[in-house]
Amino acid sequence: MYTIIPEKGLVSNMKAYQELTREELLALKEQLDAAYVDAKGKGLKLDMSRGKPGISQLTLSMPMLDVINSQSDMKTVLGNDTRNYGDLDGIGECRRLLANMMGVEKDNVVICGNSSLNIMYDTVSRSMTKGVNGSTPWSKLDKVKFLCPVPGYDRHFKITEYFGIEMINIPLLEDGPDMDMVEQYVNNDSAVKGIWCVPKYSNPTGISYSDEVVRRFANLKPAAEDFRIYWDNAYCIHHLYDDKQDEILNILEECEKAGNPNMVYIFSSTSKVSFPGSGVSAIASSLENIDFIESQMTVQTIGHDKINQLRHARYFKNIDGMKEHMRKHADLMRPKFEAVLDVLEKELGGLGIGSWTKPYGGYFISFDAMDGCAKAIVAKCKEAGVVLTGAGATFPYGKDPKDSNIRIAPSFPTPEEMAMATDLFVLCVKLVSVEKLLEA
Amino acid sequence: MYTIIPEKGLVSNMKAYQELTREELLALKEQLDAAYVDAKGKGLKLDMSRGKPGISQLTLSMPMLDVINSQSDMKTVLGNDTRNYGDLDGIGECRRLLANMMGVEKDNVVICGNSSLNIMYDTVSRSMTKGVNGSTPWSKLDKVKFLCPVPGYDRHFKITEYFGIEMINIPLLEDGPDMDMVEQYVNNDSAVKGIWCVPKYSNPTGISYSDEVVRRFANLKPAAEDFRIYWDNAYCIHHLYDDKQDEILNILEECEKAGNPNMVYIFSSTSKVSFPGSGVSAIASSLENIDFIESQMTVQTIGHDKINQLRHARYFKNIDGMKEHMRKHADLMRPKFEAVLDVLEKELGGLGIGSWTKPYGGYFISFDAMDGCAKAIVAKCKEAGVVLTGAGATFPYGKDPKDSNIRIAPSFPTPEEMAMATDLFVLCVKLVSVEKLLEA
Repeated sequence: MYTIIPEKGLVSNMKAYQELTREELLALKEQLDAAYVDAKGKGLKLDMSRGKPGISQLTLSMPMLDVINSQSDMKTVLGNDTRNYGDLDGIGECRRLLANMMGVEKDNVVICGNSSLNIMYDTVSRSMTKGVNGSTPWSKLDKVKFLCPVPGYDRHFKITEYFGIEMINIPLLEDGPDMDMVEQYVNNDSAVKGIWCVPKYSNPTGISYSDEVVRRFANLKPAAEDFRIYWDNAYCIHHLYDDKQDEILNILEECEKAGNPNMVYIFSSTSKVSFPGSGVSAIASSLENIDFIESQMTVQTIGHDKINQLRHARYFKNIDGMKEHMRKHADLMRPKFEAVLDVLEKELGGLGIGSWTKPYGGYFISFDAMDGCAKAIVAKCKEAGVVLTGAGATFPYGKDPKDSNIRIAPSFPTPEEMAMATDLFVLCVKLVSVEKLLEA
Repeated sequence: MYTIIPEKGLVSNMKAYQELTREELLALKEQLDAAYVDAKGKGLKLDMSRGKPGISQLTLSMPMLDVINSQSDMKTVLGNDTRNYGDLDGIGECRRLLANMMGVEKDNVVICGNSSLNIMYDTVSRSMTKGVNGSTPWSKLDKVKFLCPVPGYDRHFKITEYFGIEMINIPLLEDGPDMDMVEQYVNNDSAVKGIWCVPKYSNPTGISYSDEVVRRFANLKPAAEDFRIYWDNAYCIHHLYDDKQDEILNILEECEKAGNPNMVYIFSSTSKVSFPGSGVSAIASSLENIDFIESQMTVQTIGHDKINQLRHARYFKNIDGMKEHMRKHADLMRPKFEAVLDVLEKELGGLGIGSWTKPYGGYFISFDAMDGCAKAIVAKCKEAGVVLTGAGATFPYGKDPKDSNIRIAPSFPTPEEMAMATDLFVLCVKLVSVEKLLEA
């Protein structure tokens, strides 16, 4: 395995960088500069920028493509022809499958197209033009605000930015968003209409919301009647381990119990279960919310791709089949995560120049560099052939106030490539950190 | 073949109903009433309400489902993996195929999801929230109007109605919309932002726009910079005959020539080529318009279903393969259209109580009853077991000012069923017409 560092003796004492003298830092910088020149010469070309499944994961789902063929019975369990118009809210067996995946009842689920992001976009777009269950359309309001736990998912923030919605950063802690702040905003400011959440194996930190956090969400007393929680449960069955798994409380049930039955929209998809772009997506919510959503859907489309719904329902059979399939994904993903974590631990442990998360599932590892270093680290990596998610992308407007957070996406490269890429990454972290300390 | 009428001697002289005496009308009504009671007793249960392909048409496309299987090379011609994220605007081979279908260049085409209706919805929705290429969002305007050639497609009208856009009826003549009226509105009223068109084998009349009409469209001088022609070319390759086919001028080229390159959006899909709900859809427009559309798409989705795009591109191979496939559709559709037209001609010819169209393609026959009769005819048919598209549906707000137009959709039933349904239909037309004349 290709390893850039440590050369013997390089920071051999593993002393925290902050404790080094200026002379030690200068000496270290010289070594790191040399290592970096060497690294650049290797001609790396690796992409850790997005949560793209790896080739081996895509291969896992190939047998699904045989399930529906020219000889297949194309009818649903209820006898509806999936090849023709009809079943606007999705075929029954696919609704059941995704309901089980999302931990809700079938009647609360509507199957949509291939992308849960598109459902989220539509949900915000509809609120702009038609309001929420009869409220004033947001486009008629002077100000609409969304709370954005940070670091978070860049594509959530892009949606709210696109529609001119003001975004407010909420620190994401180890057990979920800072709920004191969330309650303060939601319960007092009627311009706050939503909050973006990835409650399980959060993008990018990988943390999951504690039961207390979920209950505090369910018990919000929003100043705005059209406030909703945008609960993107993208990684609901995306565990890395058999024996260490996060579970979260059922937000729909908790909201019902708390007398807020309409307060949450849950989104999910099989993009990272079957095929990105050729999966099925779903929204789950209260029946009242679903009715309102369908009043839009019936204008928007005659129906989604039911043949693909049938393909998914027949291939996975049921939630157990799906979970078994996800175990195979885990077997492929785990070595990649561990390759990154091993290098981070070995190379940066105790140096005081970075901290990171060790998630039990999801698609990302989140890395916090010293303040003011993230952009420079990402740039240095890119210069040497490793593309990371742009620094700042995990914050609204692409602005990380501390310039500290970097999202690492280990899924696409092989474990060997991930180790190589991480070797370069830690070298860049060290180099930029030393430069930062020398500036100070 | 089951035939309700004519019993021998019934209106044997084929005299126009208007020329009958009151006594003759009363005698006729008695005969028709008896025939209707008889018809109700047959327990018909047929649906001519929507343009749903028939089972035999769906069967035609079944081999497509074998084209992609677990052994397939899943890469595009350019080497992109269709199973993963990427190719936001569609894979090259599918763009080329649909470009040829729509008669435009590949670069002017973006492939979307499974439904062109959804693209139209998105296009109007985006104009509401973001304007058109930088213009004021329509939601910020006091008044937005669309021109609606009538009779037209109900789902177009539902979109504009949903967004609170005022709809103005424009008579659809034999060669297209009344262009004097169109020019009058578009060139003078800056609140007029669009016009819904089905330029070829129009829904429901089946007429196609003449070259002169297309040129007059291209040469509009809109008062509103954000006026666009919504050109739903749904039936571009949906001919019924080999030797009698309509062709229309290329609106994108004509708009360019006329100095209005950005004035048109063209929509189409393979919903009635491969599978309704599991086809691919596309929008074609100027590069400037496409850029603006993609600035939305990139927020809305990470990409559409590329495996399905690959399935379509490989199955049809090219536009010739697609046209050959459509010939098989025509062989199935033609007898259904002819079954309807034969009965209409035989039973209503010369009676002065209805007129209808004989299209060379598309999915519909449009029938105009005597004024004030359409609702009653549809109700009578329903009572006896034949469901037609609701009277008025072909007009904005579901209001046919003359209560005259009825859309007949012959595609779903078999030719035999179509003949039976049409037998009932003409009986109801006669009965309601006689009642109307007796009232007068």
